[in-house]
Amino acid sequence: YSFFFALLSSLTVIALAYDPDTLQDLCVADHTSGIKVNGFTCKPESNITASDFFFAGIGKPAVVNSTAWSAVTGANVEKIAGLNTLGVSLARIDYAPGGLNPPHTHPRATEVIFVLEGELDVGFVTTANKLFAKTVKKGEVFVFPRGLIHYQKNNDKAKPASVISAFNSQLPGTQSIAATLFTATPTIPDHVLTTAFQIGTKEIEKIKTKFAPKKV
Amino acid sequence: YSFFFALLSSLTVIALAYDPDTLQDLCVADHTSGIKVNGFTCKPESNITASDFFFAGIGKPAVVNSTAWSAVTGANVEKIAGLNTLGVSLARIDYAPGGLNPPHTHPRATEVIFVLEGELDVGFVTTANKLFAKTVKKGEVFVFPRGLIHYQKNNDKAKPASVISAFNSQLPGTQSIAATLFTATPTIPDHVLTTAFQIGTKEIEKIKTKFAPKKV
Amino acid sequence: YSFFFALLSSLTVIALAYDPDTLQDLCVADHTSGIKVNGFTCKPESNITASDFFFAGIGKPAVVNSTAWSAVTGANVEKIAGLNTLGVSLARIDYAPGGLNPPHTHPRATEVIFVLEGELDVGFVTTANKLFAKTVKKGEVFVFPRGLIHYQKNNDKAKPASVISAFNSQLPGTQSIAATLFTATPTIPDHVLTTAFQIGTKEIEKIKTKFAPKKV
Amino acid sequence: YSFFFALLSSLTVIALAYDPDTLQDLCVADHTSGIKVNGFTCKPESNITASDFFFAGIGKPAVVNSTAWSAVTGANVEKIAGLNTLGVSLARIDYAPGGLNPPHTHPRATEVIFVLEGELDVGFVTTANKLFAKTVKKGEVFVFPRGLIHYQKNNDKAKPASVISAFNSQLPGTQSIAATLFTATPTIPDHVLTTAFQIGTKEIEKIKTKFAPKKV
Amino acid sequence: YSFFFALLSSLTVIALAYDPDTLQDLCVADHTSGIKVNGFTCKPESNITASDFFFAGIGKPAVVNSTAWSAVTGANVEKIAGLNTLGVSLARIDYAPGGLNPPHTHPRATEVIFVLEGELDVGFVTTANKLFAKTVKKGEVFVFPRGLIHYQKNNDKAKPASVISAFNSQLPGTQSIAATLFTATPTIPDHVLTTAFQIGTKEIEKIKTKFAPKKV
Amino acid sequence: YSFFFALLSSLTVIALAYDPDTLQDLCVADHTSGIKVNGFTCKPESNITASDFFFAGIGKPAVVNSTAWSAVTGANVEKIAGLNTLGVSLARIDYAPGGLNPPHTHPRATEVIFVLEGELDVGFVTTANKLFAKTVKKGEVFVFPRGLIHYQKNNDKAKPASVISAFNSQLPGTQSIAATLFTATPTIPDHVLTTAFQIGTKEIEKIKTKFAPKKV
Repeated sequence: YSFFFALLSSLTVIALAYDPDTLQDLCVADHTSGIKVNGFTCKPESNITASDFFFAGIGKPAVVNSTAWSAVTGANVEKIAGLNTLGVSLARIDYAPGGLNPPHTHPRATEVIFVLEGELDVGFVTTANKLFAKTVKKGEVFVFPRGLIHYQKNNDKAKPASVISAFNSQLPGTQSIAATLFTATPTIPDHVLTTAFQIGTKEIEKIKTKFAPKKV
Repeated sequence: YSFFFALLSSLTVIALAYDPDTLQDLCVADHTSGIKVNGFTCKPESNITASDFFFAGIGKPAVVNSTAWSAVTGANVEKIAGLNTLGVSLARIDYAPGGLNPPHTHPRATEVIFVLEGELDVGFVTTANKLFAKTVKKGEVFVFPRGLIHYQKNNDKAKPASVISAFNSQLPGTQSIAATLFTATPTIPDHVLTTAFQIGTKEIEKIKTKFAPKKV
Repeated sequence: YSFFFALLSSLTVIALAYDPDTLQDLCVADHTSGIKVNGFTCKPESNITASDFFFAGIGKPAVVNSTAWSAVTGANVEKIAGLNTLGVSLARIDYAPGGLNPPHTHPRATEVIFVLEGELDVGFVTTANKLFAKTVKKGEVFVFPRGLIHYQKNNDKAKPASVISAFNSQLPGTQSIAATLFTATPTIPDHVLTTAFQIGTKEIEKIKTKFAPKKV
Repeated sequence: YSFFFALLSSLTVIALAYDPDTLQDLCVADHTSGIKVNGFTCKPESNITASDFFFAGIGKPAVVNSTAWSAVTGANVEKIAGLNTLGVSLARIDYAPGGLNPPHTHPRATEVIFVLEGELDVGFVTTANKLFAKTVKKGEVFVFPRGLIHYQKNNDKAKPASVISAFNSQLPGTQSIAATLFTATPTIPDHVLTTAFQIGTKEIEKIKTKFAPKKV
Repeated sequence: YSFFFALLSSLTVIALAYDPDTLQDLCVADHTSGIKVNGFTCKPESNITASDFFFAGIGKPAVVNSTAWSAVTGANVEKIAGLNTLGVSLARIDYAPGGLNPPHTHPRATEVIFVLEGELDVGFVTTANKLFAKTVKKGEVFVFPRGLIHYQKNNDKAKPASVISAFNSQLPGTQSIAATLFTATPTIPDHVLTTAFQIGTKEIEKIKTKFAPKKV
Repeated sequence: YSFFFALLSSLTVIALAYDPDTLQDLCVADHTSGIKVNGFTCKPESNITASDFFFAGIGKPAVVNSTAWSAVTGANVEKIAGLNTLGVSLARIDYAPGGLNPPHTHPRATEVIFVLEGELDVGFVTTANKLFAKTVKKGEVFVFPRGLIHYQKNNDKAKPASVISAFNSQLPGTQSIAATLFTATPTIPDHVLTTAFQIGTKEIEKIKTKFAPKKV
């Protein structure tokens, strides 16, 4: 389970994706199984209860202490076993005043946000390098198409904000750009980063240092 | 467009489904096109703006005046053209005190609800006729697996309730059971209904009458 | 296996659906495996024989003794192990004189019927509440689109009828509307049903009583 | 429409496949549209009738006069416009006494047959070159997995036989092996065929001659 | 594992197909597992290394000694465990001078070739029996659409040729037409072949003899 | 970045992915159509020729003059109309001595490379921030799983290198990380980038300047 522990210990496992169709009514994830498949094996039908389809973990704001001052709490198949094979999940994102959910992609899903509180500056960039950006307020909805880099920023310096995100995947996955490039284990070679960003090794090291202590 | 007008004039067009994968970054629905395909044709790329991915129509409670005292407001591809080909959508459901979102199915999606306000008794039934039911409160989440009959009822007689629903379809569709059986045009023959429900023609007619004036 | 026993003990397990693609030529269901996945695990290739792709159980009319005077006999992956991962199955439906296959949905498939004997009144209702109905005779074909409520009724009071149904799922599943609402275990609360159907508790209880002794 | 005329003029257009999911309840094929897409565009919703889901063309045996003494009659999206986007279709195959439906594949579907009349020797070969063969009688069912070469032969020298075939594609397509190799237009070069079959040009030409006058 | 031994002992297991989507980043095939599923189960995440995504077996020409003077070397999920669930694979085909890759189909994928060396006459036939043929040279690309019969022939009598093939399946599978018809185990009955090819039993037996000693 | 130059100078944004299944043998893209759908509409069947499945544009090294000293040349549905609906494509990547194909993602496909010439340091990072890196030489193969950030670098300072890439999408799309963040139009706000990378506005502006004159 080290894969999932790794996922769970990561701040930004939101995940999303286009999943295969169901082949029976229910296939509730058996998180205790030693057998690993694409998705999860199903627990015995007699053990399924309504609680497998229930989750109480995104009702309240999460503690926000990441580098970028936002926190993502997944409500995906890792938390709601009943979502296995069903191809949909939620997440809650909380933003400190001025807080950012930094540029990232979901390799397996489109995301739709509903703003619970506050006001956000949001945007996504297409593969033609065109930015679609907008300010969204409480009760408003915005779409981040599948696989494209996007971000959300709380544009109020004094008040927190929060959204509910919906994904068309039971485990959409999140790849936070800066964390991926500067905190991977083992590290991406410096010369890849210096060439990519057109900056010197010293600047690259400086960025790595900033990320390092916080162990995102 | 009569198909969509019909859908829009219906109270309960929520629906959702497993959609085909995208073949380009964006294919924003061209709602003015005379060409009809599976989904929608795409508007010219140069006409796309951030507003195509934005919706402000589910921030406030809807007026609740249906027979069963609940109102569903879709935030799907009919409202958000940018959702075309992306396979995900939202809806908001508002419940009067004691109000019911009556038993229904979504032929094309699983639904996940997040309770915004109030407390609901919810349930779904499998094809093996097993009911999975639970009470969910503000901030809690529940899953209704794809294609199965389910309902939500506000269990508070004094206060309204509301949820945000996420679907893994850009247009999940909703088939409300009682409305389908008793208000279809043309009508389902009485003898089908009397045999199905084991009741007399008189009772069937009585039910039809109750539904009739409200024109769901 | 209680899940499948439950399915098998139910009258109407026909099932159908859009299944994921195959990843090898054959993956014959291993019905004896303790491992449960989306679909079934595959039996060892050396144990596969032509009999895994063969079924002799829908050649003759089934005994018809249900409430609604029709009987559905599945020829799906539960009966034909070789259908696993192949996304198609058959069923045979036999109708007593005047018999009904009451309103139901298949959460995972479209159905196409070929009339073997007799004459049927058939129909399906769209999510826009429009009924498409027709009379079909021996040798004729009719389509019931995926997920929509539909029915078939033998319109001859003296002679039996029968059809072969094809589904684009190896296990389409069937949700019979009245049985789902009035015979689920545990039961759907009366107040949900009274509100949904606009009738009193007494009428609801009367319907439940009619269904009860026959234990559908 | 030359594509479909070509298909229709071919003896064995049965076809079948795994189709994308539906994005609305109905998308009845508009066979008169000049716009061609993957599948068909949809006709206006107001023009849809129950007849779009109905077909009467496979109730009676077809005239059998092909080289191999069998006839395939499709009941697919070309005949039943309502099947568009629904991913399922039927066909009827009639066999003269001793008649053969020669080795062929369906590039887009698994096939399940139900024997209406007679007795057939049937078989399919896997990519590991293993033959799975069986004799099937009236009322029995056999499966031909997707994309694999298979055949059916009426093993009675005196009586005709017939089956109903179900496919998990609205247009499965058929590629009859011998006709493909020896009657394609333009022709496959002789040296490809002599090497493939390890026989001389004279034998190849002899086979071509046999096929030629019958214009399969 | 007899299934895969069978596959591996066959000359032409190239394979290709439309696979279901991934449900997590990685699901590297556990080729040692006793559990068989659609695809492969995943090995423990902690055991995954970069070598699971690497293959060195198609860098050099294979020895060409088959009946038809060509050799196919797969770089699919059987060789590259990391391809499991990812829906893509490669193969290398080497052709002796004048050598043929005889008519065959891939039941689960489209193939795109890139010519590494030499010049080939290539072609595919549609289900409408239309041949699309072309001569392709070093550095050129050609497409063989999914499931259709196709071939490649080295049109130089003196020099070898080679291509890299890409498939949209992790295990596309190959069904070589002549080998399937004349070398299956058990054998396809002679009368099926005599009728299909319109030739006598003697000719059929002669072809079988030619194939037999080489044990394709 | 020449890949993006090619993309940007082309009218229609390329990309790649898991595509829906085919519904007929061929649907060759009609690049002249004014109707835009998910993918492309099909040209008339009578206009299809073998050239629609052929491409000669990746046989020779491309001119490499981008910022990062590599050039990507697509062989996808924009270049090969016959690839429409077939879900697979190729590309060629040429690297100057020491040249980099900088960190990027393909929102719609897994990539498999075959090294034509030279030696590359390659790697991808999972959503759990684990780097899988390897050195691959001429004739070797490496896999970059769908949607994950990856790079390739020519590790020889004196000699060029090149690869053939295969994707399981007819139009996989590419999102180059640095170009997306620092050259989008309109620009991503500085405060998003300063927070994401933990560097000052001055450094951000410096990076933008480096990218700017080259007009990626």
